[in-house]
Amino acid sequence: MLKEIDYQQILEGIYQDIKVYSTEGKQADYIPALARVNPEQFGMCLRLTNGREFTVEDADTRFSIQSISKVFALAMAMSLKGESIWERVGKEPSGTAFNSLVQLEFEKGFPRNPFINAGAIVIADVLMSELTDAGTTFLDFVRDISGNKTITYDREVARSEREYGFLNAAIANLLKSHGRIVNDLEEVLAFYFRMCSVTMSCRDLARAFLAFTNVEPFNYCGFPLTSSQIKRLNAVMQTCGFYDEAGEFSYLVGLPGKSGVGGGIAAVCPGRYAVAVWSPRLNPKGNSVMGMKALELLTTRTEESIF
Amino acid sequence: MLKEIDYQQILEGIYQDIKVYSTEGKQADYIPALARVNPEQFGMCLRLTNGREFTVEDADTRFSIQSISKVFALAMAMSLKGESIWERVGKEPSGTAFNSLVQLEFEKGFPRNPFINAGAIVIADVLMSELTDAGTTFLDFVRDISGNKTITYDREVARSEREYGFLNAAIANLLKSHGRIVNDLEEVLAFYFRMCSVTMSCRDLARAFLAFTNVEPFNYCGFPLTSSQIKRLNAVMQTCGFYDEAGEFSYLVGLPGKSGVGGGIAAVCPGRYAVAVWSPRLNPKGNSVMGMKALELLTTRTEESIF
Amino acid sequence: MLKEIDYQQILEGIYQDIKVYSTEGKQADYIPALARVNPEQFGMCLRLTNGREFTVEDADTRFSIQSISKVFALAMAMSLKGESIWERVGKEPSGTAFNSLVQLEFEKGFPRNPFINAGAIVIADVLMSELTDAGTTFLDFVRDISGNKTITYDREVARSEREYGFLNAAIANLLKSHGRIVNDLEEVLAFYFRMCSVTMSCRDLARAFLAFTNVEPFNYCGFPLTSSQIKRLNAVMQTCGFYDEAGEFSYLVGLPGKSGVGGGIAAVCPGRYAVAVWSPRLNPKGNSVMGMKALELLTTRTEESIF
Amino acid sequence: MLKEIDYQQILEGIYQDIKVYSTEGKQADYIPALARVNPEQFGMCLRLTNGREFTVEDADTRFSIQSISKVFALAMAMSLKGESIWERVGKEPSGTAFNSLVQLEFEKGFPRNPFINAGAIVIADVLMSELTDAGTTFLDFVRDISGNKTITYDREVARSEREYGFLNAAIANLLKSHGRIVNDLEEVLAFYFRMCSVTMSCRDLARAFLAFTNVEPFNYCGFPLTSSQIKRLNAVMQTCGFYDEAGEFSYLVGLPGKSGVGGGIAAVCPGRYAVAVWSPRLNPKGNSVMGMKALELLTTRTEESIF
Repeated sequence: MLKEIDYQQILEGIYQDIKVYSTEGKQADYIPALARVNPEQFGMCLRLTNGREFTVEDADTRFSIQSISKVFALAMAMSLKGESIWERVGKEPSGTAFNSLVQLEFEKGFPRNPFINAGAIVIADVLMSELTDAGTTFLDFVRDISGNKTITYDREVARSEREYGFLNAAIANLLKSHGRIVNDLEEVLAFYFRMCSVTMSCRDLARAFLAFTNVEPFNYCGFPLTSSQIKRLNAVMQTCGFYDEAGEFSYLVGLPGKSGVGGGIAAVCPGRYAVAVWSPRLNPKGNSVMGMKALELLTTRTEESIF
Repeated sequence: MLKEIDYQQILEGIYQDIKVYSTEGKQADYIPALARVNPEQFGMCLRLTNGREFTVEDADTRFSIQSISKVFALAMAMSLKGESIWERVGKEPSGTAFNSLVQLEFEKGFPRNPFINAGAIVIADVLMSELTDAGTTFLDFVRDISGNKTITYDREVARSEREYGFLNAAIANLLKSHGRIVNDLEEVLAFYFRMCSVTMSCRDLARAFLAFTNVEPFNYCGFPLTSSQIKRLNAVMQTCGFYDEAGEFSYLVGLPGKSGVGGGIAAVCPGRYAVAVWSPRLNPKGNSVMGMKALELLTTRTEESIF
Repeated sequence: MLKEIDYQQILEGIYQDIKVYSTEGKQADYIPALARVNPEQFGMCLRLTNGREFTVEDADTRFSIQSISKVFALAMAMSLKGESIWERVGKEPSGTAFNSLVQLEFEKGFPRNPFINAGAIVIADVLMSELTDAGTTFLDFVRDISGNKTITYDREVARSEREYGFLNAAIANLLKSHGRIVNDLEEVLAFYFRMCSVTMSCRDLARAFLAFTNVEPFNYCGFPLTSSQIKRLNAVMQTCGFYDEAGEFSYLVGLPGKSGVGGGIAAVCPGRYAVAVWSPRLNPKGNSVMGMKALELLTTRTEESIF
Repeated sequence: MLKEIDYQQILEGIYQDIKVYSTEGKQADYIPALARVNPEQFGMCLRLTNGREFTVEDADTRFSIQSISKVFALAMAMSLKGESIWERVGKEPSGTAFNSLVQLEFEKGFPRNPFINAGAIVIADVLMSELTDAGTTFLDFVRDISGNKTITYDREVARSEREYGFLNAAIANLLKSHGRIVNDLEEVLAFYFRMCSVTMSCRDLARAFLAFTNVEPFNYCGFPLTSSQIKRLNAVMQTCGFYDEAGEFSYLVGLPGKSGVGGGIAAVCPGRYAVAVWSPRLNPKGNSVMGMKALELLTTRTEESIF
């Protein structure tokens, strides 16, 4: 790894090469706030462990991070509960869509992993049990890990999510019927939707995910993780971070990461860099079309992946 | 990674620490040849990319590699067909047991990945279509990649597998009914079972898997793979190599690898080392109890994993 | 069928013969009101089309009719909507438990039949759309068809059902997410639970179900059904009335009927009689143990079934 | 039921009214022998318990009875094994297509009922265990019950079925892997396919099914059944006789019956008549389009059904 890589040039080259995909896919439109976003946007930010940062295009535009928030929630839960967190949620890929009820029913309400909706709702329940004001603490954590005190919830998104969130309500009710949720169901759902509503830019996410490269001690807002815990969190991202496209992402990109239906993807090359990319149009599996392409080219051209 | 690691000492320490698990789990007994194996055996071999090799205990005892053979078959198929191989088989984790028919039926006979039985049977079919004598060529490839000309099939195992292999026959018939197998069904099954019957030692497997560390050009027996292809093969191992315990292995060990019901596991730390471990007793998911423990301790103590 | 049958003697003989089962099974206890019921009760009432009535034991004790209410709701919906009701719900046996979400998810929220919970919730939605005060009208209908103006809802049961009804809430949310519910979800659930909470005696139910023997014109409370519609309603009861024990009931008893978790079963022998039986202890499928036995003996000894 | 019904006129009227459907649907074409049949044929035969017989069109043309043979096989097995037959196969509707492997896998190889392929293969296995020459005895039974000594197997059909029968071979192998088949798998499949290959006319089938109207003692070729057993056999036909269209048939027709992919349907009105209808074009569920229509009109116009 002694060769000198010109990351800025690589990022700019990637952007040129993937422009052709800018009209491919369809942005999330299940709530008005997401449907309104201009889909022709693209941003990318790569941050090295030495602190250097490279960006292209809309790297400072904020967007709804949606499921990427599940990584922050899991980090907090792992810090609070250690290995015992896995008594509440599994760590196996689901093999089915992120919102499937089938597996959940067959497995008596035990969610496959913390990155499908069922698992993230259970993690939300854990955080609510452990923290006096989970909503505030979660925001403090995200602000601290990304070094940006202005990050906040999008109230309209959170409200809309609940209003149209019948499938998530079905999941939460099924969890509750199996005794997998301890707190009040509506409060858990409200907290879950608030976490999904956080808006961040690619630069914010790249800075936040740098914490998972495992080069500095991890301790944000009073939530420490050991080096071993970070590796394991990365392992879960690797196998479960992309719904039923986890294998495809692992194959094409080869980095632990997490996507969201807002069109964002954040990923980590342990010991080297963190990267975030955003573009609203999604493929049929719910992952950003340009985001997937950009990351595939990134690891191909830098030859830096985990494999 | 500048620290000097004493691998020999680490391997010996691991063996001491996992001895307590030597009676845990149950060896495969669905065919007589596997049921007869002395279950109290354990072997391990680690080979660095610089050629140094470390072993403990029964590292030179041969055992039935079973599903580990699927990695070699996939390497050959990727070399022969390139990306088009993925028109015949997927690369997503299955989320279900290795021999499940459910998913196969729902997905019209398209196997989730090349490491579940259905996928491996399709890969066997591909190799039979491409090669004039697939059985001989497969063996030549395995001998070449491991540098051991004495490796061979175990005829009794292959015969028994077919005799008791009603579930695999069910899978093959289902594949055929969906037009996913081109060649004669019984011949494909016979070839598939032969591949599973290959016997190798941990040393053989560690040497063979060194090819996947991606430090030397890959070309064995006329089957070349590019560096990018090897990375992708590792990615598939990472997400799909351990049946419905892929997440657990990724979490605890953090290496691409493949297990077999003979009790063997082979894994790769790209750019650093290959490792093989063997012990016949399996956990309920079909993976070697001591093998899983040994690899977990290995990456913990060397601090060398992909994450 | 010219022989003279002494029904009273048969009913008494049945009761003697099934007493031995009085401690078998377990009453529903998911809500306090059902858990409190004395499980050692048994009642039975048979009413011939000529108006003669035969009873044994607790035939006049009221109990929670639970899912038997689904028959009345379907009768009303068929009267209101005719054949178009089947655009909202299927009429095939489900092959799975009454509260399964799996099938519902696979079939995009289209319930298999009106007697599984999902289907009954959709029927509740239909009635709410068609009627200005569905709650009052449903009660009027039940009072009219059974000829008992004192029948009413059990408010405590209805409230408890909602309080503990997470699984039904999951089902309703899943239906809503697929656009299968038009009205406000909480209001539909409230109406659904109210219908389930109606309390009736075996005598009330036998009188009500006499309407499905198809010997008199059917028109209660302004809800007429043709002879052909009644036959079809019976057909749906026959194939779907007993959850995943429909085949067993058809085999052992051979009458169209419907059971409820309160321990009641009502059934029809077209052209001949209606019968209701009640005993709180349920078998693992959710059907009354003594109720099933009693009806099996009834059709065996009278030799009157539909087959 | 004192009114005089002119069955001949009803049958002729039905034929006139359903002619418009003569080009709807698609005949079975998975084997050449079935694909070759002229699809524009229609036959129907109704036989009263008093011996009078009414026919229209091709009522004497023989066709492949296919799955209708499962009724004869079950009758023989019930006669041989009594209630213990249900230890080998269930009697619940499957809720899925006739050839589904999913349910079979979930339920450890225990077939839902004797009329799905898995269940019929198990019944074939039972007959082979009980009879010295099951193939000959089955034919003798069919000849005796229909009163036609010329009925025979169609060797070409039987051979083709096996040749193209990968799905059935998958089912049989899955059954065997769960220990549900005792005899040699290939021999069981061969016998199963032979039974399906029997050719009969509507007249033959109507005469055979008259035995299930339960007015005469049942004893053919040394296989007696009690009145109660016949009722139960009818019950199984009623709930399981039409794959995942059992509810539809029950709703529209209201008779116990069994269909086959050759386009035949045979049904029973207990105590009154047996009826057989045949037309090769099938609906998407695998049941004869004109056959379903004809029987719906028959029970509507005669007002004779079990409900």
